[in-house]
Amino acid sequence: MGDEAAIRALIEARCEALRRKDGAAAVAVLAPDLVAFELPPPLQVPPETATDPAAAQAWLDGFDGPVETEIRDLVIQVGGDIAYSHSLNRLSATRKDGRAVAFWMRSTLGFRKRDGAWRIAHGHTSVPFRMDGSFTAALDLEP
Amino acid sequence: MGDEAAIRALIEARCEALRRKDGAAAVAVLAPDLVAFELPPPLQVPPETATDPAAAQAWLDGFDGPVETEIRDLVIQVGGDIAYSHSLNRLSATRKDGRAVAFWMRSTLGFRKRDGAWRIAHGHTSVPFRMDGSFTAALDLEP
Repeated sequence: MGDEAAIRALIEARCEALRRKDGAAAVAVLAPDLVAFELPPPLQVPPETATDPAAAQAWLDGFDGPVETEIRDLVIQVGGDIAYSHSLNRLSATRKDGRAVAFWMRSTLGFRKRDGAWRIAHGHTSVPFRMDGSFTAALDLEP
Repeated sequence: MGDEAAIRALIEARCEALRRKDGAAAVAVLAPDLVAFELPPPLQVPPETATDPAAAQAWLDGFDGPVETEIRDLVIQVGGDIAYSHSLNRLSATRKDGRAVAFWMRSTLGFRKRDGAWRIAHGHTSVPFRMDGSFTAALDLEP
């Protein structure tokens, strides 16, 4: 498999793990020193938290049914053993309290190949915020 | 100059352009097909807007005095002609209406080397938002 195909498979494995709500599989694609910029604070999530299977499982267990990810405009750039990607991702799921969650976010990923295997070494996930004085996250945007 | 040093110089050139409020210099470091995920909507800014010197100048002209960027925890990963970086950046400036703006954001950049010159080919800038029901951007976080 070529590098770009391997990275696409890695991204798909992550999405499939979220869909199945398998915390261990969701973090298996991550490098142990992952630096994560997530949707909620803090500014950056330390690797030991971001790669913790129990933390991933606890987050996934907050949902009823699958956590679906639709990916659009995926671009992957590979150079040797380093790569990055960017895409627009739509997360859709239903929280255990019955509240439906569905919005588009931006995803940028950094990848590293070690011993022949690609892993996610950096993740940056965000939504823009409105500069109309409200400073609220713009969760209703469409690509 | 090595690749990592060249990329550091590119990032510094961008910051220096903002400091001097030089719109043309600020976009000179960008690849023409840059895909930008910025702080305000839309989800992604088209290359023709993100690389437009006049648009950059208009944004910079909204400030009185320099637009300062402090960079912390910068990590650069280089593979051949592709690289990415991530850092925490503190923007500080004073708007023309006298309002001071100062907050930490997350910055991820994708780079491409073409004809021996590195350019920024992807930029993702964000702040997290609070999941306390307010969905407001967390502009008061410290690294």
